[in-house]
Formats: sequence, structure tokens, C-alpha cells
Amino acid sequence: MAGRVVRNIERADAAVIDGLGACGVATVHEAQGRIGLLGSRLRPIYPGARVAGSAVTISAPPGDNWMIHVAIEQLQAGDILVLAPTSPCEDGYFGDLLATSAQARGCRGLVIDAGVRDVRDLTQMGFPVWSKAVFAQGTIKVTLGSVNVPIVCAGVAIEAGDVIVADDDGVCVVKRAEAVSVLQAAQEREAKEEDKRRRLAAGELGLDIYDMRGKLSALGLTYE
Amino acid sequence: MAGRVVRNIERADAAVIDGLGACGVATVHEAQGRIGLLGSRLRPIYPGARVAGSAVTISAPPGDNWMIHVAIEQLQAGDILVLAPTSPCEDGYFGDLLATSAQARGCRGLVIDAGVRDVRDLTQMGFPVWSKAVFAQGTIKVTLGSVNVPIVCAGVAIEAGDVIVADDDGVCVVKRAEAVSVLQAAQEREAKEEDKRRRLAAGELGLDIYDMRGKLSALGLTYE
Amino acid sequence: MAGRVVRNIERADAAVIDGLGACGVATVHEAQGRIGLLGSRLRPIYPGARVAGSAVTISAPPGDNWMIHVAIEQLQAGDILVLAPTSPCEDGYFGDLLATSAQARGCRGLVIDAGVRDVRDLTQMGFPVWSKAVFAQGTIKVTLGSVNVPIVCAGVAIEAGDVIVADDDGVCVVKRAEAVSVLQAAQEREAKEEDKRRRLAAGELGLDIYDMRGKLSALGLTYE
Amino acid sequence: MAGRVVRNIERADAAVIDGLGACGVATVHEAQGRIGLLGSRLRPIYPGARVAGSAVTISAPPGDNWMIHVAIEQLQAGDILVLAPTSPCEDGYFGDLLATSAQARGCRGLVIDAGVRDVRDLTQMGFPVWSKAVFAQGTIKVTLGSVNVPIVCAGVAIEAGDVIVADDDGVCVVKRAEAVSVLQAAQEREAKEEDKRRRLAAGELGLDIYDMRGKLSALGLTYE
Amino acid sequence: MAGRVVRNIERADAAVIDGLGACGVATVHEAQGRIGLLGSRLRPIYPGARVAGSAVTISAPPGDNWMIHVAIEQLQAGDILVLAPTSPCEDGYFGDLLATSAQARGCRGLVIDAGVRDVRDLTQMGFPVWSKAVFAQGTIKVTLGSVNVPIVCAGVAIEAGDVIVADDDGVCVVKRAEAVSVLQAAQEREAKEEDKRRRLAAGELGLDIYDMRGKLSALGLTYE
Amino acid sequence: MAGRVVRNIERADAAVIDGLGACGVATVHEAQGRIGLLGSRLRPIYPGARVAGSAVTISAPPGDNWMIHVAIEQLQAGDILVLAPTSPCEDGYFGDLLATSAQARGCRGLVIDAGVRDVRDLTQMGFPVWSKAVFAQGTIKVTLGSVNVPIVCAGVAIEAGDVIVADDDGVCVVKRAEAVSVLQAAQEREAKEEDKRRRLAAGELGLDIYDMRGKLSALGLTYE
Repeated sequence: MAGRVVRNIERADAAVIDGLGACGVATVHEAQGRIGLLGSRLRPIYPGARVAGSAVTISAPPGDNWMIHVAIEQLQAGDILVLAPTSPCEDGYFGDLLATSAQARGCRGLVIDAGVRDVRDLTQMGFPVWSKAVFAQGTIKVTLGSVNVPIVCAGVAIEAGDVIVADDDGVCVVKRAEAVSVLQAAQEREAKEEDKRRRLAAGELGLDIYDMRGKLSALGLTYE
Repeated sequence: MAGRVVRNIERADAAVIDGLGACGVATVHEAQGRIGLLGSRLRPIYPGARVAGSAVTISAPPGDNWMIHVAIEQLQAGDILVLAPTSPCEDGYFGDLLATSAQARGCRGLVIDAGVRDVRDLTQMGFPVWSKAVFAQGTIKVTLGSVNVPIVCAGVAIEAGDVIVADDDGVCVVKRAEAVSVLQAAQEREAKEEDKRRRLAAGELGLDIYDMRGKLSALGLTYE
Repeated sequence: MAGRVVRNIERADAAVIDGLGACGVATVHEAQGRIGLLGSRLRPIYPGARVAGSAVTISAPPGDNWMIHVAIEQLQAGDILVLAPTSPCEDGYFGDLLATSAQARGCRGLVIDAGVRDVRDLTQMGFPVWSKAVFAQGTIKVTLGSVNVPIVCAGVAIEAGDVIVADDDGVCVVKRAEAVSVLQAAQEREAKEEDKRRRLAAGELGLDIYDMRGKLSALGLTYE
Repeated sequence: MAGRVVRNIERADAAVIDGLGACGVATVHEAQGRIGLLGSRLRPIYPGARVAGSAVTISAPPGDNWMIHVAIEQLQAGDILVLAPTSPCEDGYFGDLLATSAQARGCRGLVIDAGVRDVRDLTQMGFPVWSKAVFAQGTIKVTLGSVNVPIVCAGVAIEAGDVIVADDDGVCVVKRAEAVSVLQAAQEREAKEEDKRRRLAAGELGLDIYDMRGKLSALGLTYE
Repeated sequence: MAGRVVRNIERADAAVIDGLGACGVATVHEAQGRIGLLGSRLRPIYPGARVAGSAVTISAPPGDNWMIHVAIEQLQAGDILVLAPTSPCEDGYFGDLLATSAQARGCRGLVIDAGVRDVRDLTQMGFPVWSKAVFAQGTIKVTLGSVNVPIVCAGVAIEAGDVIVADDDGVCVVKRAEAVSVLQAAQEREAKEEDKRRRLAAGELGLDIYDMRGKLSALGLTYE
Repeated sequence: MAGRVVRNIERADAAVIDGLGACGVATVHEAQGRIGLLGSRLRPIYPGARVAGSAVTISAPPGDNWMIHVAIEQLQAGDILVLAPTSPCEDGYFGDLLATSAQARGCRGLVIDAGVRDVRDLTQMGFPVWSKAVFAQGTIKVTLGSVNVPIVCAGVAIEAGDVIVADDDGVCVVKRAEAVSVLQAAQEREAKEEDKRRRLAAGELGLDIYDMRGKLSALGLTYE
């Protein structure tokens, strides 16, 4: 079943991808109906990065990073590598050499439900990674996996070409076919939030802005 | 049982609260007899914050952040929100809009045994949060909880008006009625530590400063 | 069985130790055949530190930090304290006073499969710690442990005088007797990596540099 | 602060306690408004036990089981020991000798947010334990804790004399003062459930029994 | 996005399903190329059960079990309920009443990446459950989820009608369209294993049966 | 470094080994000074087994069970296989075929800091396993490990020929050279416990048997 590389994947429009990145994970997640969020065990190796890109997916055996080399050839500028091991693993699949290679091809980052290493170098290079662990444990190159096949990464089903949004809040995936509509919903949400933020900053209460008092009272909330 | 909001809570003296904050978590924890420390799973979303304030407590259903809006109305300047879900949950109950609202009322931070999101914005706003997870997972607003009732947060019983101290070491609670005496003990402890720090920095050994050699030898410590 | 302090431990050559530190954890780990890596639960309290030193080992009862005082007397400049509790524990064995004392004796850092506290102070002092938890929980001083005996720390057997290398990727141990040969292998590895890094940065693929295409094809990798 | 033993605690009525035990954890938990459930990390050492009793609480230092001896003297027939360590610990505080002693005094079981050992013997004795771990790690007897003071065990505040109900589903606590009313609510719940069980067993659907179809449809549930 | 119930799902042939069940999880997992295994956190509530059935999938909000009632109406004899919460949760979604209802419709068991309760009753009923936790925590009925939509459960993508195999080793899913070929491969595997089992029981070594000695030696295995 | 098989290992006397097994894990652990206990994550796959035997150690790559075949050839009657992966892994290294082979050579069980599968068959065969996980995930046979070299398993250093004791309380290792003296200490401990058990069963208190009242009082224990 393993051993497949899908070469011609479709990607969302670059402007849409960048728009989703600008909205960030929390907004995009809400805008698409509270789905698509990868598990909270994926954390950024350094704070402050915010990226969006097309997923180049990797299904890799535990402790075997061979397929990353295969995947790098499939990268286009603006892509994000997304790796899921076929059984739980926290070995360090990825380090500064692979990052150098990926960055040379325009890759914007890595999402990996396993470990990463050389994080000091990766930080200096500005190559962001969201991983389950930082662990220097070396990997081998003996067994085939697959590239650009559907995977489940940190609890979420992802297909090659889906849009990945990642920032300090974690990682969210948007189905490629829904990227345009999700972006629109996200931007509308942002616009509304701006107004609310101003009012809240001025001291108005959410209880009033969202008109919650009646409902709370009806449910029996009592003040003592 | 849920659905109660207690409005008039008593708070400790502002100067006492600030004094405890200046001492920090480790010192306060020791000064009150090694109690009151919340579980180590609560970590700050950014390094360097050190705050103290009066607890406005929130007991919230899992995945439902409605009560935070209710709690914000109860905030006074210098308070800290403390949220415990009624069953384990890492959803992102709190983000930049709620922080804007809380900050507008003088709130000094949030302690939450669940998740938080928009951490980049919160960091830029200087609104510190100690949480179990960073997770963008959205929450709903359908079920009542309670505000300013006794809760257990990360393993520790907390009442509204208790003093919360939080820094890079975690979070500690001081019973309101004991705040004055704990502050005194903490400051005494600090004074003594200053002298020891000087001596240790000069190369004196703890073995000698604390006169440990005899006791160790009596217990059978042998040097080879 | 506890209650032993071994005083005259052998250490590796200072230049060798510093050489290993310059290579870093990932490289050293690979150079010695992918062994010696401590569990990924040990994380640095602040980013950016990279140290190497001779292990002064501590076997300590859970929640009892007495032996750290004993161990500090055994420190020489360039040493690293390595503490393993005799049963799992995340209490805060170590804080700024002990760090002041250790630093006064030239200690380069602490590796502890338990908790640490006063991390803000430790960060300001530039005293790096790799720990399982940040937890202010105080410890006692009543039961003997041992110093400079063989321990298992975060899953790895360590003897006093072994070389500890620690950086943002975690912690690795090199057997004292193998320090010279491991350094040589690590430096050779670094030299080779430099060339590869240049080629990868220029856009060459690992698939070609490492001549992988034939092997992958022979195993049945197919491109669609 | 530690070092207190409260001797004359009040207990709920024996018949009420036994009635709660007969209802079991899930029913009691629901009957009192979904509160009082200890964390799911507490698991029975063998299946099939169901007990209820009055809590004799123990606050114990990590790795120190001295206070269990003190607590056993405070036991009356029908009591349950409830131990919370003052910092997280999975050491084996309790084994067959302590169980023999407790059983001799009529103790019905142990709830412990730490480890237990000799579980084969305890199973043969029919002495049930709900614990966080099975771990043979020995403990010491050097530091004072307290008996029959308020504790937080596995996330729930418990006072001496509160009613503990434990079975294969876990552990629940009922405030002593509410034991009578909770029992009544639990028994009413059981009575209603019996009727529903019969109807469900006969093939009727919950959708109809609970009249859910209209509400689901109003919320937008669609069938395809 | 939530709020969908798909009614007419296709199922695999009953004999094929039962054949897969007879092979068991480990054999089926191997036979289909080592895929489809749900995370090891899913454990049976009692030992000895082995079932196979068609998945009726449930996507449910955290702490809300309303959709189970909806799903039960969709059950046919031989089906297995498979529930994935939309964010991590260990609440007790399912107990003896729901099991009575499901069993009345011929349901063979439940797979749930969350909690279950009333496990004593479920054991007595012979209704097997594979769950992440045993936890009595009650749930609510306020928010829509979906039934028979694609879900990710314990790390694996599952569609309604896929074949679920579950036993003491855990849970495995077989894509409906591949059920026939996987069964054939599994039965071939079993046949071969029978012969090997006999030879191994007679004292022959795997090293010889599988002809491994040459390969091991070529790779450099040395005997001392 | 990997790729070594040590053939002629020394074992402790068979009667001593069986004596240690009869004492059980908790007693042996105490008798040797509270050391040697493997981490509590190792749990038996079925209750009631109690074994002791000589360790045949396996250092295996993650997800690769090849070395188990190599190790089985090294087994003598009365041995116990002890496997530690070189990085954390919960794959199912071992199932009924390997157990058949091991049992044919007189092997008494397996201790593995990873996963096991076919646990229903293993239970029926009476082949006990203490493992970190039950997980059907298949492994490969491509990379060398070593047999009968020193390993660290679940946090404890073990050498080939050391005595393993395992029961429902977990797993303990006794250094081969200390087996005789540990057995003597364990049997003395058992003899003493028998007397105490009788007295405690008769209602005497540990407080009196161990003469604790004075010490407790001196430390400040107060009764209210």
C-alpha cells in the first residue's frame, strides 16, 4: 500500500492561501465551523511564526525519514510539509539539512506529528516547525512510505493540496475546495471582531454587546 | 447547583497582594508551609510575567465559555480570573476579545485549567495566561456555570477573593485570611535568602552554612 | 545502599568536552551511533543554551534535595550536575540559591529528571537547566542519596565523569572513555554536513546527493 | 500546617451510605447534579467491587506513608480511607499489611491519588482500592501529614465524613450534609431508569421516549 | 457543517464481516498491509470480547451525547457504533441505558475515543466497549453532531459502513471496498501461521524457519 | 555499536531465582533497599501471574522485532526475555508465534518497554507479559540490535543474567551477584511480616507495634 508518490496535486490560489494565513488559526478554525484543528500536542519550535501553504503530505514509517527526501522534490514555493508517522513516534525526523533543502525550494514550514531536531538552527534560519516533540533521536532510511496521499495528522484527515494555517495557536487545515469560502467567512469574522474589540476595550461588556442577560436569566442564573 | 454568581466578594489588601506578587511563587509557596501550589501542567503563555491579584473564580462546563462573560462583569481592578472546567477539557475558552474586555476592567491575568488561544495577541497585549494547553478549539455558550463559588483548579481548592500569585514557576494561591501573615513570612524568608545568596556566591557551601555535615555523617553518609 | 559519595572521579579532557559541546546534541548523538540521548521530556528552561561538561551524578530520594548540597562540594569548574530521583517526581529540587552556589564553583548547568523552580532567576543568571517540569513544589532534607554513583537519568545510564552535552535539542551523554573518538566522528560528520548544506541550499536534492533514486525504485516506489 | 489529626468527625447515617453504595457512582453523580466525580485516573485494582463509606482523609507528603498508620486508628467500621499526596506521586503507599490492619477495623476500602502494591493479596483479601498507579515503590516514615482535614483528591475537594461511593466506574464523593437528599434523588432516578430500560429493551427509541425529534429538527438536523 | 444524518449506508457482506472478526485484530491489521489500527489508548472494558461489524459513525461535540440517540435509530443488526468527539474529551457518553437500546437493535458493541460508564452493567450484558477512559462524568444533549459522516477516531479515518474488528488487542478498521480481499489475505496468513506455530512449538527456531541467519550475518551480527 | 549477541551469560542459581519469585516484587524490592523497580507503565497483560527468571536482554530498534528471533535461540529454560527499544515505541513487537517459540524453549515470560499483541492467545497459553502497551501495530525486520548487552528498561539498568521478578505489582530486577543475599533479606522480611500480619489482623495498631507514638508526638502531631 505504501510506496506511492503523487506528483501533480492541485493547490488553492496563492492569494487565498495568504489571506487565510493573515487571519490566523483561531479565526480560520471558527470561520469554517470549528473543524480542522490539529491536536494541541503540535507546538511551534519558536514563538511568533504565522504561515499558510499547500500541504505536501508524507506518510512515513516510525523512525524512518526517507520519504522526506522524496517529498522535497515535490515541493513548490509556498508549500508546507505535513508528516504523519504510521505508528506513534517522537523520533527526530527532520533537522537543519532537510530544512535547508526544503527552504531552497520555497517551503514555508513543516508540520509533523513526531519529533524534530536542530531547533536552534531552524530558529536561526526562520524555518518554522510545529511538532509533537523536540528530540534528537536519529532516524533510518530503509522502508517506503508515501507522498501526497491522504493522511491523518494529529487527529485530522489531510489531503495533498489542502491549505495549512499555522501560528502560535497551533495548526488548522482547510479543505482546498473550501478555501475561498472559508477565507470569506474568516474575513467577515475579522471585520466584526474589530468592532467588538473597540467596544470591549472601551469597557462595554460582552453581556450587553451579545445581549446575553435575558438568556442567562431565563436559564436560571442568579446573582447573590 | 450551577448558575450562581456571587457578587460581593471580599478581597485582601491591595498592598499585601502586591507584596506577595513581588515575592513570587516559589517564595510564597515555601512561606506558607509548602501548600497552595497549582499543578505544574499550568504554564505561562509567555515568559517573564509575574502577577498577583484577587481570584474571581469560574466553574465552567467543558467546552462552554459563557460564564467568562458573566465573570468579567464581576472584575475589579487587580483581579485575576481563575477558571476550572467541571470535567477535563483543553478547549480554547479564552482569546483576545475576552482579554480586551478583561483588561479594560483592570484584570491582571487568567489562570485556566483548560486551553487558551490567540496567544500571539495576548502576548502583544501583555495579558498573561497560565493554562493547561494552547488550543484554538472553539467553545459554545449554552450551559450555566457559576462565578465566585469555591472551585478546585489544577488540584487546589480556591475561593473567590483568595490571592493568586503567578510567575514563570507556575501559580500559587494564598487564602485571603492568611495573606498578611504569609506576606510577612515570605518577606522574612527573602531577607534571609539574600544573606545566603551572598555567602553562596562567595563560594561558601550550603553544607557549612546550614551546618549539615554532622547530620549527614550521623545518618551514615560515607565519602570514598 | 544509598549514602555514598565518590570523590575522585575521572573526567574527560577539557578541550574534548568543549569540542563536543560545540558540535551539539544531534551531531554527537549521531556520531556515536545514535545512542546516549536522554528522554525528550527533559526540556531547557530557556532557549539558546548549549553546554558540555563532566557529569557529577546525584541519586536522590523523591522530594528530597539534600544530596544536591553534598554534590556541589564535589563540583569542579566545567562540571554539570545530573540528578535522577529514585522514583518518579516532579518536585522543584533546585532553585536560585543552589544555582548561585553551583555557579560559584564553575558548574555549567543542571540536568534533572524532576522539577526546577526560580526559573526567572536562573534565566537571568544564565544558569541553564534541562528538566522534566517547572514546579515550585518545595523539597525536604531528611534522607540520604548518593553522589557520583551510576544512575539512570531519563532512560539513559550515566556514570560520574561521563560527558554531558545539552542544547535546545535536549541532552546526550558520551561515555568518558569514548569522548575522544566520538568527538572525532562528530567533527568529521560536521565537515561533511557543511558541504551537503551548501549543495542543498543551492537547490540540489538529497535524492541525488545521496544517490537514493535507484534504491527507492528497486523497493517499488512509484510516481503517479 | 501539617501534623493535625481530627478525631471526632461526623458521619452520615449508615443506611444512607449503604443506599448510595447500592445506587453506584454514575447514578449518584448524576443525582447530585453531575458533581463530585474524582478524576478518571483512579482505577480499581480488581473489577466488581462496589462500596460506600465515610471518608477518613489523609494528607500525606510524597513518598511518605506514615500518616496511614495514624489514620487507621481513626477508622470506624464502614469507613473508607482517602489519601491525597501533597505533591504528585505514584509510590506504593499501601500494601497487604496496612490493608490487614484497616480491614480489622472495618474499613471498606482505600481511595488513593498515588500508588498501591501487593495487589494480588489485596484482591484475595477482598480489600478494594482505587488508585492512580500500581507500583511497588516503597515509602518512608519521616514527615508529618494530617488526618481528617479537608483535602483535594484527584481534583475534588473532600472533607472527613463525606460519603465516598466507588465502583468500576470510578469514585464519587457526596457532601455529608447532602447525603440524604442525594440518596433520594438517586433512588428516584433509578426508578425512572427501570421503566426506560424496559422500553428501550423492547425496541423503543430514545428519540421517541425522550421526545427529541422536534428539538433536533428545529436545530437543523437533516436526514439524507 | 454538523447536523447531518446519512441514512442509507452500504455495508460489507455479513459473512465477510464475520470472517474478519474470526481472524482478529492483529491478523487483519497485518493482512491489509499494517494499516487501519486505532490508537492503543482504546482499551476494552472487559477481556475476551471479539467482534466485527459495520461502522455507524458518530461525530459528537465534547461532552454531548445527543447524537448517540440519533445514531441508534440508524443501527442494523451487526453494526458497531463508532464515536469520535470533535475535541478531546473523556466524559462518559454511554452507559447501560444506551447499551440496552443499541443491543435491542442488534448492535455488537461501541468504539469510542472518549469515556464510557456503567461498565459493570455493560459487562453483565455482554455489550463490549473499547474506550479511551472509564469515567462516569455525565454529558448533555444540546448541540448537533452528525451520524454516518466520515470521522477520524483515535487517529484513523473511518467511513460509515467500514468494517470494524475489535478484540483484546484493540480496534482495526477495514475499508468496506477492501473487506473481501483483506479477508482472503487474512485467512491465507492464518493458514501459514498454523504451520509455523506447529514448527515453533516443536522447537524449531524462527531464525531457521524464516531463513534469517544469512541476512543477519551479512549485516554484521556477531556472536561473542 | 549494535549487532552483538553475547552467548555465554551467567545466571543465578535456579533455587535462588525461584525463591525470589515466591517472595514477589514488593518484598524483593524492599529487601534490596528499595531499588530495582521498573517503571509503573509496565503492566501485566492478565492478572495473577508471578514469575522469576534470568534476563535475556534485547536492545531493539523502534518498530523492529528482528532481534527477538535472535534472542530466542539464546534462551534456556527459566529465562525471561527483557526488551528495551532504542527510542520510545509502543508497537506490538511480540505475539503468539514468538511466544510459542519462546515457550518451547522454557521461557517464563516477557518484559517489554513497548507493545505486545495477541494477548488473548498469550493469556490462553499462560505466557505472561509485562508491557507498556497492548497494540497490534506490526513491526519490521531490517535493522540490527543486540542481545544480552546491558540495557535500560523502563528506567532501570539491566544486564543479561540478572534476576527478573514480576507479578501483579510490576517488575523488579536483582543484580545476579546479589541474588543470594537479597533472597535471604527477602525471606527474613517475609518471616517478620507474618507475625505483624497476625497482630494487625487481631486489631493491634501499627502505631503500637512499630512504637510510633513517641516519635510522632515529638515531631508535633496533635490530636483535636
